[in-house]
Amino acid sequence: MELNTTIKTLGTPEYLTPIHLSRSDTDNIYNYIDDDDRVLYDTSLKSFLKHQNENSVPVSFEKAGPREKLYFNLSKVKAGIVTCGGLCPGLNNVIRSLVMELWYRYKIKDIFGFRYGYEGLIPSYSHEPILLRPDMVNPIYLQGGSILGSSRGGQDVPEMVKYIKALGVNVLFCIGGDGTLRGARDISEEAEKIKYKLSIAAIPKTIDNDVNFIERSFGFETAVSKASSIIRDAHNEAYGAYNGIALIKLMGRDSGFIAAHTTLTNQGVNFVLVPEAPLKLDGDDGFLNRLKKRLERRHHAVIVVSEGAGQDLFKDLPVEKDASGNIKKHDIGIYLKERISGYFDEIKFPHNIRYIDPSYIIRSAPANANDSKLCSQLAQNAVHGALAGKTNFVVGLWNSQLVYLPIDLAVKERKKINLEGDLWWNVLEVTGQPNW
Amino acid sequence: MELNTTIKTLGTPEYLTPIHLSRSDTDNIYNYIDDDDRVLYDTSLKSFLKHQNENSVPVSFEKAGPREKLYFNLSKVKAGIVTCGGLCPGLNNVIRSLVMELWYRYKIKDIFGFRYGYEGLIPSYSHEPILLRPDMVNPIYLQGGSILGSSRGGQDVPEMVKYIKALGVNVLFCIGGDGTLRGARDISEEAEKIKYKLSIAAIPKTIDNDVNFIERSFGFETAVSKASSIIRDAHNEAYGAYNGIALIKLMGRDSGFIAAHTTLTNQGVNFVLVPEAPLKLDGDDGFLNRLKKRLERRHHAVIVVSEGAGQDLFKDLPVEKDASGNIKKHDIGIYLKERISGYFDEIKFPHNIRYIDPSYIIRSAPANANDSKLCSQLAQNAVHGALAGKTNFVVGLWNSQLVYLPIDLAVKERKKINLEGDLWWNVLEVTGQPNW
Amino acid sequence: MELNTTIKTLGTPEYLTPIHLSRSDTDNIYNYIDDDDRVLYDTSLKSFLKHQNENSVPVSFEKAGPREKLYFNLSKVKAGIVTCGGLCPGLNNVIRSLVMELWYRYKIKDIFGFRYGYEGLIPSYSHEPILLRPDMVNPIYLQGGSILGSSRGGQDVPEMVKYIKALGVNVLFCIGGDGTLRGARDISEEAEKIKYKLSIAAIPKTIDNDVNFIERSFGFETAVSKASSIIRDAHNEAYGAYNGIALIKLMGRDSGFIAAHTTLTNQGVNFVLVPEAPLKLDGDDGFLNRLKKRLERRHHAVIVVSEGAGQDLFKDLPVEKDASGNIKKHDIGIYLKERISGYFDEIKFPHNIRYIDPSYIIRSAPANANDSKLCSQLAQNAVHGALAGKTNFVVGLWNSQLVYLPIDLAVKERKKINLEGDLWWNVLEVTGQPNW
Amino acid sequence: MELNTTIKTLGTPEYLTPIHLSRSDTDNIYNYIDDDDRVLYDTSLKSFLKHQNENSVPVSFEKAGPREKLYFNLSKVKAGIVTCGGLCPGLNNVIRSLVMELWYRYKIKDIFGFRYGYEGLIPSYSHEPILLRPDMVNPIYLQGGSILGSSRGGQDVPEMVKYIKALGVNVLFCIGGDGTLRGARDISEEAEKIKYKLSIAAIPKTIDNDVNFIERSFGFETAVSKASSIIRDAHNEAYGAYNGIALIKLMGRDSGFIAAHTTLTNQGVNFVLVPEAPLKLDGDDGFLNRLKKRLERRHHAVIVVSEGAGQDLFKDLPVEKDASGNIKKHDIGIYLKERISGYFDEIKFPHNIRYIDPSYIIRSAPANANDSKLCSQLAQNAVHGALAGKTNFVVGLWNSQLVYLPIDLAVKERKKINLEGDLWWNVLEVTGQPNW
Repeated sequence: MELNTTIKTLGTPEYLTPIHLSRSDTDNIYNYIDDDDRVLYDTSLKSFLKHQNENSVPVSFEKAGPREKLYFNLSKVKAGIVTCGGLCPGLNNVIRSLVMELWYRYKIKDIFGFRYGYEGLIPSYSHEPILLRPDMVNPIYLQGGSILGSSRGGQDVPEMVKYIKALGVNVLFCIGGDGTLRGARDISEEAEKIKYKLSIAAIPKTIDNDVNFIERSFGFETAVSKASSIIRDAHNEAYGAYNGIALIKLMGRDSGFIAAHTTLTNQGVNFVLVPEAPLKLDGDDGFLNRLKKRLERRHHAVIVVSEGAGQDLFKDLPVEKDASGNIKKHDIGIYLKERISGYFDEIKFPHNIRYIDPSYIIRSAPANANDSKLCSQLAQNAVHGALAGKTNFVVGLWNSQLVYLPIDLAVKERKKINLEGDLWWNVLEVTGQPNW
Repeated sequence: MELNTTIKTLGTPEYLTPIHLSRSDTDNIYNYIDDDDRVLYDTSLKSFLKHQNENSVPVSFEKAGPREKLYFNLSKVKAGIVTCGGLCPGLNNVIRSLVMELWYRYKIKDIFGFRYGYEGLIPSYSHEPILLRPDMVNPIYLQGGSILGSSRGGQDVPEMVKYIKALGVNVLFCIGGDGTLRGARDISEEAEKIKYKLSIAAIPKTIDNDVNFIERSFGFETAVSKASSIIRDAHNEAYGAYNGIALIKLMGRDSGFIAAHTTLTNQGVNFVLVPEAPLKLDGDDGFLNRLKKRLERRHHAVIVVSEGAGQDLFKDLPVEKDASGNIKKHDIGIYLKERISGYFDEIKFPHNIRYIDPSYIIRSAPANANDSKLCSQLAQNAVHGALAGKTNFVVGLWNSQLVYLPIDLAVKERKKINLEGDLWWNVLEVTGQPNW
Repeated sequence: MELNTTIKTLGTPEYLTPIHLSRSDTDNIYNYIDDDDRVLYDTSLKSFLKHQNENSVPVSFEKAGPREKLYFNLSKVKAGIVTCGGLCPGLNNVIRSLVMELWYRYKIKDIFGFRYGYEGLIPSYSHEPILLRPDMVNPIYLQGGSILGSSRGGQDVPEMVKYIKALGVNVLFCIGGDGTLRGARDISEEAEKIKYKLSIAAIPKTIDNDVNFIERSFGFETAVSKASSIIRDAHNEAYGAYNGIALIKLMGRDSGFIAAHTTLTNQGVNFVLVPEAPLKLDGDDGFLNRLKKRLERRHHAVIVVSEGAGQDLFKDLPVEKDASGNIKKHDIGIYLKERISGYFDEIKFPHNIRYIDPSYIIRSAPANANDSKLCSQLAQNAVHGALAGKTNFVVGLWNSQLVYLPIDLAVKERKKINLEGDLWWNVLEVTGQPNW
Repeated sequence: MELNTTIKTLGTPEYLTPIHLSRSDTDNIYNYIDDDDRVLYDTSLKSFLKHQNENSVPVSFEKAGPREKLYFNLSKVKAGIVTCGGLCPGLNNVIRSLVMELWYRYKIKDIFGFRYGYEGLIPSYSHEPILLRPDMVNPIYLQGGSILGSSRGGQDVPEMVKYIKALGVNVLFCIGGDGTLRGARDISEEAEKIKYKLSIAAIPKTIDNDVNFIERSFGFETAVSKASSIIRDAHNEAYGAYNGIALIKLMGRDSGFIAAHTTLTNQGVNFVLVPEAPLKLDGDDGFLNRLKKRLERRHHAVIVVSEGAGQDLFKDLPVEKDASGNIKKHDIGIYLKERISGYFDEIKFPHNIRYIDPSYIIRSAPANANDSKLCSQLAQNAVHGALAGKTNFVVGLWNSQLVYLPIDLAVKERKKINLEGDLWWNVLEVTGQPNW
């Protein structure tokens, strides 16, 4: 695997950091992180032995953390924060922790909160930025959503950079999904082109947890946790009626991680349909007949379907896109509901189906404890990296450690469930469903 | 107001109750309740003075509670429990408390749990009843739904009574909505006709809280509480986008109590649309223009709509009914969403609308603490009444006390929000919305 | 019963209210409330008949609500808010709703939030008041506690009134327990003495729910709900060990309402010990032997004890008081734990006891949905009453309606569990415990 | 580092597994796991390079998962489950998943649930084992605790093995802490000694998360999550009083993981005191003076202390042990509370301290979503390993993968917070507290 894992920098860091750490392993004081502190991509012994034999160096990622020297003279730093795309639990925690880290650890007092995503970087929208202070952001972690607001879609890159420069912002934190990350990269490149020293640090926001080389993105666990409660109760709907069926559509445009993990938190799910696995409805071993057999045996069934599952069932229909340029998925939830009802009506099989689509209820929730912790760590390390002059990077979790990745690597392709991997096996083991 | 508030009885209670209480007010022991312990319907001083002047007796309801004499010889009692209609938080609590009260207080060990509503009383469905015991029902209050299952719609009354008699069940507890209560009354009357001594006690189940002369039905407060959290987060969806609108449809087929009370728990709602209040969409003072003004001023809005609101907007469309014979409501949520989008698109007013329909998520939840208490009190008093030989009655809450009402009175008409009353005024006070 | 239920006023209301209501019952517009709209104290038919026979007028309370005329010229009103005593869920909701009602409905913009209870009314403490605005209080309902802070104990009354007058505050909202209410009354009387027109509206805060003539005080239901979850899990501690005992101390200095209601929400409690009921530990029918029998039968037991229960067990010990002048209770929880262990150790009866004291965890929680609603209604009606010139009053719930009571009536004596009443009977019915 | 990471086996697995998997990487079917599939201990690039240079093989752990061959003839397998020590969230989930996996995947129907820990393996206690079936364990994950009950302390090993053999149990799952694990090892060795083929699989249960070489043990995240809510509200107690101090004692006998992680989920904590870090109370830079300075600046403070922190403050007091042989910790919470009060009283510094000890409230809670998932994975892999004939092993998480470790390795020493590591640095970064 050939991967460019090198983080870009604005130049050589020369300024002293106000954070006092050490270089000794024996003084009980944390050490500054160096750029050659790296975390292996593959942690299997087999990979080790292969590289040892071949005398090759395996892929690894730069460890995140406080550097001994900063690129920026802190007295001249102005920071900006922007949140883009759909809501995801933890946005406010990230905003809060960025402000706290900038203010208390690096003494930066000019922190602009741009409103409504990249629109806030285009003056003609007249969305005035907010000056963020600790007292203002202190309690916001109790609320879901983003106090800055958000929007979908990109904006004119030179215009944004012009405005950023005009405000004197030299460190910009962009929180968002794929499109946002590409926008952040473009902003970074445009700034380079016009020789404006701008550090761009991105924090990937994907409730679907589908960013490549990132083990777990913030908000994902909260989503699984909320979905888990909803499925626990949906099971009651299924159980409460004769041949009752609860059909729950969960987020997951291209990857079924939320559906799969939620199933593992709650052994009451009987069928999990994800984008990665083919979905066969008809025939003796098809989903519909399997569902019938399950109902005959137990008289209730719980089905979880990712929003992006079974898209090949719609392959003859025209393609539409949303404001961010994402392909609009056909609604597999509604479609399945109708196919199930139609099938059972036709064979006069009594049944009761309940369709549940909790998307916004999940997205708008506050972060749970574990996500709050992750948000705080992501934000702190985004600040460390940016002030050290790194740019065009994301911060993420890999093998339980925080690392920096080039944006290009993170957006290269989406992470998907490996149908040969542990996760999918666990799902099959728990549900007993066939591997279509 | 002429109301028949007299509870029917199977005959004179003659057996001693195993519950030891007293008849003295000074021994710190609870007293047996007599049939002439009654609770006033109207608690205003004005009503008192009017009746005093007119020398008339005001309407009152029989107080629920343990009677000194029972109609049944406990050694011969077999009890049955049936849950009907859609799910509602607390069904399992009611089942649990009925079993506990019958078993531990009255030593009744033959308790049939009929499956899937009234279907379970028709042998041809082959839904075998479950024999219920304390250890089996002990932990079920942790789950929403009904462990007995439920179904909608009525069944052949003579056939049900025949089966009840064949099983030797002489005390039947029916938990369900309007249709179920009418069915319970019919069962009671059929039993009388064939001279089978059967006591029918009903516990009204209406998540909408729309049973007449019942202050609060079980599950309602849980529904409000769950809806309140959902609206708290939906507010984040609205706030998180420019001119963001969160539109939440809540239960309430004929009465807007859930929508109104939820609004009072959470001052973030801007518009509440209920079945009782006319809904005017168009014109300067219409809802759409009011919404536009709100967005211009604050750039976000939260709208709560009862499922039965604005039905006159569909008055030219044909009427459909469900299996229980309820008129199917047109989907005001989807309709409003489209009208709002259409209106703003037409005037090119930028906006972002999110539509949230949490119905099943709310119905299938376990009861909260306060509802658990109410379920337990309803069940205990249903048992006291039934074993004293009362029949064809419901147990409910009035002026914070448990009372018995004839089923006919409870189903006479639905309770609705009084647009001149405290509740609706509180809603207007909190939202500042106009009274269309 | 002779009760003075008349609310004091500063003078005749003469100013028009900005709230537009009506006087007609047929226009679907709420009507202004008049001072002779009153709610009966006793709602039993027996009470009605007695008064009808005697031709006497029963006790009733003045209904709360918006009046047609105000005493104050709104352009000259300055309001103040003070929270006193220990924390209770809902304080922030009350503060928020007071501010919203004053600001949006009555257009009052000068709202002082006094810090740290009555200390904030004494200049020498140097606790500067905060100027409260809607945007500042908007999200505070998500947090427990009081954003104003609180303190226990009284302060010099003339000094407080002098400061209030110096600030120009003419409407003061006092939120607190017994001591606070007495303080509020004293402030009101001192103002009258010096002829300063000051309206004092109090909102009783007692997590114990022990204010007389008030059905339910804010925070109580949240406390029961939190305690209910804790007991649900404590049951696991008891069940998880051989002869496991979970002993939970709940709030309730003089009244056992929290312990009793929590028990009704959760049928897993075996013994409830409250201040109102004598507690006999020793002897064959004493608590200790009963507990032993329960353990022999089921091998686990859950005990709930109010903090003020069994105080006569300490009657030979000296009396101590806290800063508010409340008598310090001896710690019945610790005492019971030691007595139980001692008893079982002595008779060599294997057992495992876990003692749980969740007091602060409950007090500091945010209000649940139902309490949020109540807080909002209390605050709105406190404002209506105060601006109409009423003073020296509390607002509270009676028979599900909001009423005004003179402070003197509310603090006359504490509300206690009636051992002959429905509540205690329900507790005995659920637990099966003897009535010591 | 020299570590024995080899798992013992009862003999060569020869029976076919009923689980159909594959050996191909391209058929979208999960592959059987082989014993040489291993996970690296150290995932840093630096460690890789060192081993590459030295041509040495790094430490690695055997990957858990379904093996192609089983040691046992499934038709003759009887399984047993025992839970020991204090409660921990997830015990019921583990029991449930063990039963489900044994029953549905391996068709084993004889599953004994031993009562009250190792006592259940000693006939003289007369704790009859329960025969576990899927319908019985299905809903237990909704409850905290252990349906089997638990006890502390060891029992006579030969006697236990004799009983196990007499019952014909050949696969035993032991869930518990250090002492339990050592007991499980002893049982395994005794069985070997008497040549009884018994597979012992252990699932480490430590709410403190202090098992060596195990990244995260079940229940830990639930504990952090519960503690996080409690601290969120405790902050209200601190904030609500002038110079208010909330002092919360959390679990952590030898390791401060719960305290540290909880702090990271909730940036409101000001001081975290853990067993690993020295605690200096007195002097200018001591804790007490630092606390005073914090209060002077902000007037409230939140302190989290692990139960095992500051034990050297008690070094002159005698050592006591509990039934499991664990050294009883002196109560640092009570001690600190008294020292803080004493210090401030002495210097007449006004303050209000609240002490909160939520231990049992946390231990008895049901597992959260993420822990439920982990419990299910641990149980499934314990079954796979045991039926393949592995014994004397634990299953745990390392670098986000499930691995098998010899019990001896797991109990070698406790995992502790590395004061030079990321976690402690994150704590210092968030709290700003000094590194005493």
